[in-house]
Amino acid sequence: MLDYQAPLRDMQFILEELAGLEGIGELPECEDASPDLVNAVLEEAGKFAAGVLAPLNPVGDQQGCRLEGERVVAPEGWKAAYDQFREAGWIGLSLPPEHGGQGLPKLVSTPVWEMWFSANMAFAMLPQLNVGQTEALTIAASEKQKATWLDKIVSGEWAATMNLTEPQAGSDLAATRMRAEPTEDGAFRLYGQKIFISYGEHELTPNIVHLVLARLPDAPPGVKGLSLFLVPKYLLDERGEPGQRNDIRCIAIEHKMGIHGSPTCTLSYGDDGGALGYLVGEPHQGLATMFVMMNDARFSVGVQGVALGERAYQAALAYARERVQGRDIVSGESGRPILVHPDVKRMLVSMRARLMAMRGLLYSAAGWFDIARHHPDDEVADKHRRYVDLLMPVAKGWCTEVGNDLCDEAIQVFGGMGFVEETGVAQLFRDARVITIYEGTTGIQANDLLGRKILREDGATLRELIGDIRETAVRLRAHERLGDLAGALDDQATLLDESVDWLLAHQADTAVLFAGAVPLLHLLGTACGAWQMARLALAAEARHEQREGDAEYLQSLIELARFYLATQAPHAHAHGHTLRHAGAVLSHFSEQGF
Amino acid sequence: MLDYQAPLRDMQFILEELAGLEGIGELPECEDASPDLVNAVLEEAGKFAAGVLAPLNPVGDQQGCRLEGERVVAPEGWKAAYDQFREAGWIGLSLPPEHGGQGLPKLVSTPVWEMWFSANMAFAMLPQLNVGQTEALTIAASEKQKATWLDKIVSGEWAATMNLTEPQAGSDLAATRMRAEPTEDGAFRLYGQKIFISYGEHELTPNIVHLVLARLPDAPPGVKGLSLFLVPKYLLDERGEPGQRNDIRCIAIEHKMGIHGSPTCTLSYGDDGGALGYLVGEPHQGLATMFVMMNDARFSVGVQGVALGERAYQAALAYARERVQGRDIVSGESGRPILVHPDVKRMLVSMRARLMAMRGLLYSAAGWFDIARHHPDDEVADKHRRYVDLLMPVAKGWCTEVGNDLCDEAIQVFGGMGFVEETGVAQLFRDARVITIYEGTTGIQANDLLGRKILREDGATLRELIGDIRETAVRLRAHERLGDLAGALDDQATLLDESVDWLLAHQADTAVLFAGAVPLLHLLGTACGAWQMARLALAAEARHEQREGDAEYLQSLIELARFYLATQAPHAHAHGHTLRHAGAVLSHFSEQGF
Repeated sequence: MLDYQAPLRDMQFILEELAGLEGIGELPECEDASPDLVNAVLEEAGKFAAGVLAPLNPVGDQQGCRLEGERVVAPEGWKAAYDQFREAGWIGLSLPPEHGGQGLPKLVSTPVWEMWFSANMAFAMLPQLNVGQTEALTIAASEKQKATWLDKIVSGEWAATMNLTEPQAGSDLAATRMRAEPTEDGAFRLYGQKIFISYGEHELTPNIVHLVLARLPDAPPGVKGLSLFLVPKYLLDERGEPGQRNDIRCIAIEHKMGIHGSPTCTLSYGDDGGALGYLVGEPHQGLATMFVMMNDARFSVGVQGVALGERAYQAALAYARERVQGRDIVSGESGRPILVHPDVKRMLVSMRARLMAMRGLLYSAAGWFDIARHHPDDEVADKHRRYVDLLMPVAKGWCTEVGNDLCDEAIQVFGGMGFVEETGVAQLFRDARVITIYEGTTGIQANDLLGRKILREDGATLRELIGDIRETAVRLRAHERLGDLAGALDDQATLLDESVDWLLAHQADTAVLFAGAVPLLHLLGTACGAWQMARLALAAEARHEQREGDAEYLQSLIELARFYLATQAPHAHAHGHTLRHAGAVLSHFSEQGF
Repeated sequence: MLDYQAPLRDMQFILEELAGLEGIGELPECEDASPDLVNAVLEEAGKFAAGVLAPLNPVGDQQGCRLEGERVVAPEGWKAAYDQFREAGWIGLSLPPEHGGQGLPKLVSTPVWEMWFSANMAFAMLPQLNVGQTEALTIAASEKQKATWLDKIVSGEWAATMNLTEPQAGSDLAATRMRAEPTEDGAFRLYGQKIFISYGEHELTPNIVHLVLARLPDAPPGVKGLSLFLVPKYLLDERGEPGQRNDIRCIAIEHKMGIHGSPTCTLSYGDDGGALGYLVGEPHQGLATMFVMMNDARFSVGVQGVALGERAYQAALAYARERVQGRDIVSGESGRPILVHPDVKRMLVSMRARLMAMRGLLYSAAGWFDIARHHPDDEVADKHRRYVDLLMPVAKGWCTEVGNDLCDEAIQVFGGMGFVEETGVAQLFRDARVITIYEGTTGIQANDLLGRKILREDGATLRELIGDIRETAVRLRAHERLGDLAGALDDQATLLDESVDWLLAHQADTAVLFAGAVPLLHLLGTACGAWQMARLALAAEARHEQREGDAEYLQSLIELARFYLATQAPHAHAHGHTLRHAGAVLSHFSEQGF
């Protein structure tokens, strides 16, 4: 079995030095996030992740979930672990205190969720839904609905789901058909089928609260006719406790390549008279609310990228330190572990560099989220909200693509032992394959980035971000020992600027433009990674100058930044080239050419 | 289930235009390879692959192999398909006529093997071992051994295996411990354990012929003490038929992520007095002979890269033509298949371009192999032998990496349906994950390329190849409609030249040099792909000018070449940059940094 140890030192360094933990802790409503408390939280979470969740990860993979009639049976140990997780209060970590949460900043909960996903992604998907659903209900639910449902969701007593997909409506929610018909007492009866519903059915909690997109009888066509409904598995009795079973059935679970521990359900609503549900927010305005939950999920899936990558890296490093094979190419010695082979070392350093780059971006984004939500200065809050909006598709799209690459590379370090299931690294690779797909594929993220985030505002926020990257390059250039890195970072900024120029100049040619969306996402992700790594190097030098921390560790961070700029950043040029040239060729490529 | 149709048109175009089928058919001993015969062979093979092997692929995946006691039970239908395959004479297609083969050039058998691997890789691994073993025995076995064993191996009546790996000896064969002790009558008794033996045990054939690396009592240490033994599962009786069971036991089969239909065995030799075997070739010279078999296997695994990629591409294309989702971003129409989305089209064209690039390289290499073997002019033969030697690690290493990328991209086209097992594309992705590992990982291929193939001769053959690439660029430049591509191809040649310069200048610093081995392999693969795509475009233009063939098809080949040069070739710069810079950073990175 693979061990997992939360990478506390790396997490803390990035929280403090790149994501501005200290400043976040000074924001209104964030004052609890003192360094001591945060460290204590991370340590406790690390213990829980390593001790309770990680050992269940292979169990979930091997046993999977079973559908028995309409019951979904979870893997052994899942229920006990969930109860422990819930009782320890982990679900409410960053959720509203008025509903029983701890109200800590997203910056603090982000590394904690990274740990849950590293330890056992299939398991952690369950409580993550509670977090997203809380965000959505907090914004759109009535006071009465909040009073009825939110405490139980925040505590995790009841589970949550997100019901969007239907067989004909996957990436395109405009095709949603699920119907909702008003009842006489102001509720609704829902009819239809939803597919790919994570944890759509299970018996880990006494109730499940489904948030469901459906159409009212008078709904306009398309996404502007979608309303949001809260539909519980069990209707509540007069005491507010789960009573009568609602008209929802799990009729199938998917046989998937990975995340076997997480049931992916087909739910049939209303086969027996209609599933009773309650409208959340205004009629026909459901999509915007669902997107609050979806955006939270997207960010979390980005975190899954770094989380699976970290677990894979730890596994590969442990194997490379232990497995003896071949001769040291320099000394000629045999009997040394494979970590001494230059190519194995290259793979591991490359993994570690990308982990730090992803973490830098994700934790920074979490901090921006907190600033956007809590900063008293509207202008500051607004800038950070725009940054979060711009980079959300990058956090999701790029970090999941890189996370897959890392799991792939870990298998390569294991060689033949990576392809056999017993070592556990194959599970990470299989599990990871879903993260570039669910909550919007990389293509969907890239279209969002290009269309809604960049073109709609003529690249304004991206230009602002490029300015920040250039400022970091200026700081590098002024630094005695890091000056040589400035050119490479500036280069990334220039590439981004040129790309924005090109995009704006080709706005009329939609097909050509959108053929470059994914390359653009890779370019921006790679460049943001370079920016974060440059900041990492500057921070490490600063600590070094103040003689704080472990000199070897600080030096290694600087080397990681150098490595990233030398090996990852150059691919941004290729992505930029593809962005500018792929579309034109594609437009000449006819259907007969396939 | 996924359909498979052999891509005959693409195969024929590349055979004729890039790999020089006509010239090969004029070589001594290759005269049977007339265009008519070759087309007939490809058509028949395509039917067999689609009709018999492809439907068994999911069966193999779902049922896998079972170990019952010491028996390995193959999936249902495997035995009947193997008998049909054998009876049709497919195994001997390119094997020596004096042992019952058809003696066709490797150029002809290469697309045929591509088909077998596309249709059912786990199955086709079995007969592929007969081909490799025949090559090895033809070179090293005594006349008596050839007479005893080869006819049955060429016909496929008996199966073949390749026994190298031991628990402590994977990539490093110097650590091999298997012992061989001489008997009084000139045979040997073998003792020890071999692992990861593909088709090490099964009942698909009445006998299995193991080729085994082992050490004689007087063996020097290291790889210079390895001898090669032929060790049959059943000893032959006086009539030459399988008689007494030899002392070999299958004690375990691996639980793998993919190729479930192919049993990966742990074989224990000599637990009951010693497994009787026969020395092949000279004592202590076994590795060179085993490498004949290994090299054949490596090339075949490269072909598996294009084969799995092709199957994945066909699946993704079929899905993209059928699945309706979203609106056409240009016309605004809904109800159109997802192939109209620019990003989906980009993925499919990108897959197709890389398929053609890989095929161009692999089929060209197969043709060079035939020229090396059969050309009457020693100088010509020698040049092509050097090309084959130089590019074998690229054919294996690069094509398997790209093959994995294509299977990954196919899942992305399928979206959520790619992650569920029922569509079959997940199997391709899981199966493909082994090909960058077995028969030498990408890292091993890259070390071979750098150390044995480039540095040992100061880059001489590579410089010659670069000259060929530049010549193609000259032809492009002279062409009215392709002149604009010349710069991009020349650029690849320059990059290669600069990389060779850099390598030669840094020969002293082994660790720095070998840290760049895999980036070098990617660089050379990408550049060779660009070269082949440029040749493809030139050939398509030439046919077009002669008004031969389907104009739309020819035009699409030109677009594929443009697409490759616009999107893949630029990554060669990043690989080159990594080659030159990664090693220096790594040498500063200490053990404490992980």
